[in-house]
Amino acid sequence: MGNAKRPDEFELIARFFAPLAEGESGALGLQDDAALLRPEEGKRLIVTTDTLSAGVHFPAEEAPGDIAAKLLGVNLSDLAAMGARPWVYTLSLSLPEDWQPSFLEEFARELGRQQEAYGLHLVGGDTVAGKGPLTLTLTVIGTVDEGGELRRGGAQAGDHVYLSGTLGDGALGLRVMQGEIDGLAGKHAEELLARYRRPRPRVQLGLRLAGLASAAIDVSDGLVADLGHLAKASAHDAIIEAGRVPFSDAARAAFALNPDLMKVALTGGDDYELLFTAPSTAADDIEGLSKELDLALTRIGQMGADGEDAGDVRVIGDDGREMTFAGAGYRHF
Amino acid sequence: MGNAKRPDEFELIARFFAPLAEGESGALGLQDDAALLRPEEGKRLIVTTDTLSAGVHFPAEEAPGDIAAKLLGVNLSDLAAMGARPWVYTLSLSLPEDWQPSFLEEFARELGRQQEAYGLHLVGGDTVAGKGPLTLTLTVIGTVDEGGELRRGGAQAGDHVYLSGTLGDGALGLRVMQGEIDGLAGKHAEELLARYRRPRPRVQLGLRLAGLASAAIDVSDGLVADLGHLAKASAHDAIIEAGRVPFSDAARAAFALNPDLMKVALTGGDDYELLFTAPSTAADDIEGLSKELDLALTRIGQMGADGEDAGDVRVIGDDGREMTFAGAGYRHF
Repeated sequence: MGNAKRPDEFELIARFFAPLAEGESGALGLQDDAALLRPEEGKRLIVTTDTLSAGVHFPAEEAPGDIAAKLLGVNLSDLAAMGARPWVYTLSLSLPEDWQPSFLEEFARELGRQQEAYGLHLVGGDTVAGKGPLTLTLTVIGTVDEGGELRRGGAQAGDHVYLSGTLGDGALGLRVMQGEIDGLAGKHAEELLARYRRPRPRVQLGLRLAGLASAAIDVSDGLVADLGHLAKASAHDAIIEAGRVPFSDAARAAFALNPDLMKVALTGGDDYELLFTAPSTAADDIEGLSKELDLALTRIGQMGADGEDAGDVRVIGDDGREMTFAGAGYRHF
Repeated sequence: MGNAKRPDEFELIARFFAPLAEGESGALGLQDDAALLRPEEGKRLIVTTDTLSAGVHFPAEEAPGDIAAKLLGVNLSDLAAMGARPWVYTLSLSLPEDWQPSFLEEFARELGRQQEAYGLHLVGGDTVAGKGPLTLTLTVIGTVDEGGELRRGGAQAGDHVYLSGTLGDGALGLRVMQGEIDGLAGKHAEELLARYRRPRPRVQLGLRLAGLASAAIDVSDGLVADLGHLAKASAHDAIIEAGRVPFSDAARAAFALNPDLMKVALTGGDDYELLFTAPSTAADDIEGLSKELDLALTRIGQMGADGEDAGDVRVIGDDGREMTFAGAGYRHF
C-alpha cells in the first residue's frame, strides 16, 4: 500500500490536520485514540453529520478550498438550524487512489479559515486511500443552552414563515455550472456559482433566534420540501406567497431568460438559508435582528389554522393561483 | 436520481435507522436537523471516528452483518483504549450505485444487536448514493469520569506491558481469507477468519483499567507499531519478549505450517485487543481482573528505564536475540 512519493497517514496528520486542532486541548493533538472533551456545564450538545461525494455533491474537478468550505458549510447549517454554537468536529476522508498532497494542503488551509470564521476546532478523523471517488464525512458537535435549541416541530397556527437571505441561488448556480442557463451575464453567473460552491451557514442568525422563532430548518432539500418537513413536524399546513419570496438580482436575471427557472429556485436545494416560523408578535424583533445582522429576513408565508394539520405546503403565485411542482425537492437517491 | 424500486432516504431512515435510535430521546427520532444530547454532569466526552471502505478494509462481497460488526467494533475499540463507556454514534453510508434494500436490512439488524451488547444508540447519520464502492464512517461518543480516562502517554520507567486476549488472529484471518495459508485445519481457519471479521472491542476491560493502567492503546496497526505509538507518547522505550506473547491455538497451528507467520502476527493489525502498561505493584489486581472478566491479560514486556526515551520498541525472540521486521505495522496508504 506504500507510495514513496506521498506522506503516510501519520505525516498527513502532523502536516495538515494537527494545526487545525491547535487551540482545543481536548483534541490531544490528534495523537491519541480519541479526543477527550469537557462539555460546558449545563449545555446540551447538538450533533450532526453529512457526507459529500465527488460526482454526486460536487464535480470531481472542484477546487479543494471550495470542497472544504462546502463540507463545513452544510454541516454548520444544520447546527444553525438548531440554534447551536459550533464547538468541535471530526473529519473522515476517503481519498481517490491518485490523490495528491497539494489537494490536502489547499483543503486544510480552507478548513483553517472556516474554523476561524465560525469558532470551532478539528478533534479527530480518519484518512483512508479508497478505491472510489473522493468521499468526505464531517461530524460536528455544537452546544446550546438548555431550552435554547430550535426545533422543526414548534410552529403554531398562524405563525409567520420567514426566510433568511435569498432563495434559489444554490440550485441556479448548479444549473450555471452544468451549462444549462444560456445568456446570463458573467457577473450574475459568478454570483450564482459562488452561492452553490460556498454555502454561508447562518450560524449567527441561528444563535439569535432562540426565544424568537417557534421552529426552524435549513434549506438544503429545497424550500417547498424543507417547509414540508417543518410543517409535518409541527402538524400544521403552510402557505407560501411566491411574490414575497426574496430572490437575488442574479436569480431574477435567470428568470428573465427562462421563467421556468423560478420553479427550480422554489424547489431546488443547496441554499443553506434558514427557514423559520415566529408568532406575529415577534415581527418587530425580527426586523430589528435583520438590521443588526445586515441579513434579509423576509416573511414569505404563514402557517395554517388549527385543524389544518396534514403538514401540506401550498405555494400561491402572483396571479393568486396555486403553483404545482413536478418534484417537491431533492430526492436523496 | 429516483429509483422506483428502492426506498428513498426518508423511507430508509424510518425503516432501518429510526429503530436504532429508540431509547435515546436526544436522537429526536432522527427527524430533526441534528441530535440534541444532554451530557451527564461532570463527565468528559470521548470522540472518535473511523472509516471502512469496500476493497480496502473488507472485501466487496463481505456479509452486511460482518461489515456492521466490524465498523462498530473498530470504533468501540478506540473508546475502550481510552477507558470510555459507549454512549451514542452517528453513521454515514456512501452506498454503491447497485445497493439493495436487503443489504441495509441485514446491516441495520446487526447494528441493533451490537448496540444492545455495548449499550449505545444511533443519533444521526447521512446516506448518499455515491459513484464508488461502499464507504462507511462512524463517529462514536463515549463518556468517562474526569481523570478516569486512559491515555497513550502515561507509561513510566519499568512499567509492565500487558496484552489482552491473543495476538495476530486478525492479521492471520486476513491471510486465510486471501488464501495464503495452505493446509490449515478448517476449525482453525474459521476461528482466525471470525477474529478478522468480527472484532471484539474490549470495552469492559477499558472501563476497569481506570486507576490501574498507566497507559493504553488498542492494537489496530499491529503490536509493534502500536506499542511504538504508546512508547513515543510516553517517552520511554519498550521491550517485548516474543516468548511471552499469547497466541491462539489457531495461530500456533498457522505458525507450524509457516514459521514466518509469527512475524505477521507480531506486526499485523486488526486485533483490537488492548495493549496497556501498569506498575509492577498492580500485578495482583490485573490478575484478579483477568479472572473476573474471563479474559487473558498477559504480561508481554516492560517499559525501559528513565533516559531510554526515544520510544523505540525492541522484540526479543525465544533465542534471546532481537527480532527485526521489514515493516513495523500497517501503513495507512
